[in-house]
Amino acid sequence: MVTEKEAKLRIQPQDIADKAKNLGRPDWTKWPVYDSAAAGLRDYWYPVLWSNQLRNKKPLAIRLCGEDIMLMRDRGTVYALHDRCPHRGVPLSLGIQEFEGTITCPYHAWTFDLADGDLVAVITDGPDSPICGKAAVKSYPVTEMLGLIWVYVGDSDPPPPESALPEELRESVAFVMGGRVADREGNWRLAAENGFDEGHAKYLHRTSTWRTFKAMPTWNITKIVPDGRWIYRVQQEVHWSANFPGLGEWSNIKWWKIRPKNYSDDAPQLGNTGGAKKADEHIVRQKFPGFASITVPGVLRIAYPKFIHYEFYVPKDENWHRYVGIMVRFVTGWRSWLFRFKYWAVIRPHFHGNFSNLDAWMVEATDAPPERLYRPDSSLLAWRRLVERTKEGQDLEEAVRDASDDVTGVGDE
Amino acid sequence: MVTEKEAKLRIQPQDIADKAKNLGRPDWTKWPVYDSAAAGLRDYWYPVLWSNQLRNKKPLAIRLCGEDIMLMRDRGTVYALHDRCPHRGVPLSLGIQEFEGTITCPYHAWTFDLADGDLVAVITDGPDSPICGKAAVKSYPVTEMLGLIWVYVGDSDPPPPESALPEELRESVAFVMGGRVADREGNWRLAAENGFDEGHAKYLHRTSTWRTFKAMPTWNITKIVPDGRWIYRVQQEVHWSANFPGLGEWSNIKWWKIRPKNYSDDAPQLGNTGGAKKADEHIVRQKFPGFASITVPGVLRIAYPKFIHYEFYVPKDENWHRYVGIMVRFVTGWRSWLFRFKYWAVIRPHFHGNFSNLDAWMVEATDAPPERLYRPDSSLLAWRRLVERTKEGQDLEEAVRDASDDVTGVGDE
Amino acid sequence: MVTEKEAKLRIQPQDIADKAKNLGRPDWTKWPVYDSAAAGLRDYWYPVLWSNQLRNKKPLAIRLCGEDIMLMRDRGTVYALHDRCPHRGVPLSLGIQEFEGTITCPYHAWTFDLADGDLVAVITDGPDSPICGKAAVKSYPVTEMLGLIWVYVGDSDPPPPESALPEELRESVAFVMGGRVADREGNWRLAAENGFDEGHAKYLHRTSTWRTFKAMPTWNITKIVPDGRWIYRVQQEVHWSANFPGLGEWSNIKWWKIRPKNYSDDAPQLGNTGGAKKADEHIVRQKFPGFASITVPGVLRIAYPKFIHYEFYVPKDENWHRYVGIMVRFVTGWRSWLFRFKYWAVIRPHFHGNFSNLDAWMVEATDAPPERLYRPDSSLLAWRRLVERTKEGQDLEEAVRDASDDVTGVGDE
Repeated sequence: MVTEKEAKLRIQPQDIADKAKNLGRPDWTKWPVYDSAAAGLRDYWYPVLWSNQLRNKKPLAIRLCGEDIMLMRDRGTVYALHDRCPHRGVPLSLGIQEFEGTITCPYHAWTFDLADGDLVAVITDGPDSPICGKAAVKSYPVTEMLGLIWVYVGDSDPPPPESALPEELRESVAFVMGGRVADREGNWRLAAENGFDEGHAKYLHRTSTWRTFKAMPTWNITKIVPDGRWIYRVQQEVHWSANFPGLGEWSNIKWWKIRPKNYSDDAPQLGNTGGAKKADEHIVRQKFPGFASITVPGVLRIAYPKFIHYEFYVPKDENWHRYVGIMVRFVTGWRSWLFRFKYWAVIRPHFHGNFSNLDAWMVEATDAPPERLYRPDSSLLAWRRLVERTKEGQDLEEAVRDASDDVTGVGDE
Repeated sequence: MVTEKEAKLRIQPQDIADKAKNLGRPDWTKWPVYDSAAAGLRDYWYPVLWSNQLRNKKPLAIRLCGEDIMLMRDRGTVYALHDRCPHRGVPLSLGIQEFEGTITCPYHAWTFDLADGDLVAVITDGPDSPICGKAAVKSYPVTEMLGLIWVYVGDSDPPPPESALPEELRESVAFVMGGRVADREGNWRLAAENGFDEGHAKYLHRTSTWRTFKAMPTWNITKIVPDGRWIYRVQQEVHWSANFPGLGEWSNIKWWKIRPKNYSDDAPQLGNTGGAKKADEHIVRQKFPGFASITVPGVLRIAYPKFIHYEFYVPKDENWHRYVGIMVRFVTGWRSWLFRFKYWAVIRPHFHGNFSNLDAWMVEATDAPPERLYRPDSSLLAWRRLVERTKEGQDLEEAVRDASDDVTGVGDE
Repeated sequence: MVTEKEAKLRIQPQDIADKAKNLGRPDWTKWPVYDSAAAGLRDYWYPVLWSNQLRNKKPLAIRLCGEDIMLMRDRGTVYALHDRCPHRGVPLSLGIQEFEGTITCPYHAWTFDLADGDLVAVITDGPDSPICGKAAVKSYPVTEMLGLIWVYVGDSDPPPPESALPEELRESVAFVMGGRVADREGNWRLAAENGFDEGHAKYLHRTSTWRTFKAMPTWNITKIVPDGRWIYRVQQEVHWSANFPGLGEWSNIKWWKIRPKNYSDDAPQLGNTGGAKKADEHIVRQKFPGFASITVPGVLRIAYPKFIHYEFYVPKDENWHRYVGIMVRFVTGWRSWLFRFKYWAVIRPHFHGNFSNLDAWMVEATDAPPERLYRPDSSLLAWRRLVERTKEGQDLEEAVRDASDDVTGVGDE
């Protein structure tokens, strides 16, 4: 017979190592695709580097979905090859270019065509080298969009690169952007879950300098809404303070930290705590059901009345991901310069810096599974289901609808 | 047919890796309890931290017997909880206190009762959060004694904390103490064995600054004597010099390093090499059979005529232990201030410093099992048997008597 | 049906991890002796340390073929013992000498005879210690030659130490030498293969300061020739430039970097790119078939007209080797002082430094097997076969002949 306390702990009478690992809490085996995607989802385009970081004919090494890839720009075009010479395994990114359109391994001068990875010459074996034309390295589809280099990792033909962009950035609309790329410890799934997580933002970020003068709610009731290829978090209730029985009152509102009167007049679903503002027309036109949305392979969109923030969680390997955060404003001319100034003076240090670093701190500290989910984790469950459905070959929009169904009641399971 | 040399090496004709590992020498499998206690003996109280290191409402993380534990002091009382939020595995020690008597996880504000570990509020899910009352973290019995915080790790009801104290400190006797706490590399069992080891002290510590003016013996004959819950090393013979055939004379006695005339007049079994002194009455009253004794779960007592030194070998995990060394003097008033001065000026740098660091050096360098024991290791054998008997559920005093029987002849096995 | 591209990649339609590992390229299982010799070839003498690095009665620890060995010089003679006290596994190299001809463990003063490893005294257990004469540590054959300490690791009786020296150094001929000993990351086999590798030298070292004024060929045709216990690389064709179809011309010749007119007049097979010189008589007398040769257990000889460079690839363990490079000039008197000056001013920084460090860089970067060999790798194949044959018990000269047969056509396999 178990005591009430034991039931809470869900401890099996075994040794403590088992307890620490299990505690009767669910792991991720009920989402087998997600569970096995530690090194990332394949068959997607990922942003990996700022375009201007890759200088002409200077190879760089990156790691994406557990694969080592060499990037090299030649006469303006970016190429991506598997970063391993098949001869003796030396990284090609240690080499230089001996002939236009090629990269040469530093060890024995095996020379590969940048475009298709074919071995086109072996300098140390002469023009009649018998191995020429018989060896190759894998080449990766690569492109440039939004001032970033994007690489496709997968085993099938790549979709058009634009498919990796949020729809509102694909149209011929002018915008200006700023962004931050940083390698972070922790699996990409924990970063993606943190991004779309309803529960943490209000508490973890309450002390962020970005929120110095704006209060955060205490708790919300949220539902998940599908729209196109995105799932949205939509607030059904927003509570600015709460009284916890036997403990006391809790609120983030301070005399210098006001609770916003209401959301944007034009589009009340934009922003989470912004004051009344005239919203950007292009953003309003999108008719986002909610301010926070996510889609595969790990792209987060946070829509504010006047700008949109995106986060790409790019898998490097099981233990590291690359955070690519960008902030987009749909303006031109002097307004774009005003935004640039604001980005470097305020947004970058406080939002892409202090605020986002709190997320990085928690992603690194998270040790799940095992885990014990609660009501706001309906957002996580919807995201996991979306990944699961998508990889089963289901149409993406249908997967989005499926993933949004019936994710309430998490706290009761 | 094996040669004489091979017999000495006890080498099987296999590859060198096997040889290095085996060499025909015993491992610890004949003491299965001891062998499996790499992470520490459970069901005991351990000193883990100086009380004044834990400031009010500032959580600290420790590791004990392989478990991560968060300590927090609230309104004077110390609490200990498993340092892992069941939600997503974030250490609670990264959190702060939002309500009296609780600790709140920094990520999603799961709030736990410090006293019993129950989940009493989830700020980000409102007062009606369905998970409240359904989750908990493990709480650990914790107390304060001797200016130290003590934690009980085990699966059964803890015994009274005083049971962890040496008997002579439990009585209502006034004393003053100084001590040193340090994390050291190496398994706690190697530290405990080093502490009670008859063999090494005379040689390893011969150059210690603590022994600058006092010679150490060359070799002893020792027996193990049980008394209460302790086993004692008792010298039967003490040899101050020896002539090794074919090699020469060896002695630690120098013109500036005198051999003590005799032990304490009052209690000749106190101290190993001290000169004639009037011994402390409280210490004499204990009637210790010998100056060095040990008991489970790894507490060493070295009784000198005027003070007693204790070492607690606190298991952190398989590779690290925490050394807690304290020196106790049974005096009050101005004598206690004199002791404090002497502790910081002499005892701490030379005894808890230089002398004890030699032990730390050897514990880190030890690579056993495999091992090849010799006559003075009867002290190790008795200690291992004590652990073995104790954990088999035997009464402690009976285990002490069993462990002390027949541990001679080690060198002949 | 596989496409042409897939055939080049030799990709099986499996997951990328398999691809990265296999790619249809050979591993080393076809050379089972070589494949299992990660920690080094046993039953050989190895140079491990400069003689003058081992000061009298100051023990030093080395690692050789995965074994920890303590070296100690006593009254001029060097001794080598397994660096592990059998009592509790403490390294003997942490100890000091208490009696002539012995080393004493710092922990419990177990005292071993340096010559045979026998336990001759245990200071802490007295002259009648029962374990004396019943324990021992392994002793290693050790000697000094060429100003270096050499240790024999093996399970059989060692051959005469001179057998480890190149023949031309065994004779009673006067010479002077300089050298460099350095620990390098990477398995010793990769270092040995790099040393005898025909393919890389011309390309990898083209930028070395050692070659500032001397051009390297572009490509060669090479055959492997046996002679005595060495296999030689012999150039059949040397091409100083080449035109690669569709890519362009490649040559290392620059206006300041001339192509040597011809080889040494006396012995055209000496040196790879040296100009016409009167060659050293002792070197000419050797009648080396080629300038580069190798023999077991990993000794490289590069013969120039006036000096010979040797490299010993000494296995420490699977991941590290010790590079021992020496340069020998067969002169005496003032010429030997001239050489010493030239060694420290030019040869050491540029040849044993800059030039050799490029090899160290590639050995560390090499990640093979898997591998895809090409025509010049006939030198590697011959070396691997030599190791394979030798360890099968075949006579060394016969093994050399076998290993040199039929190693062409690598690029076609």
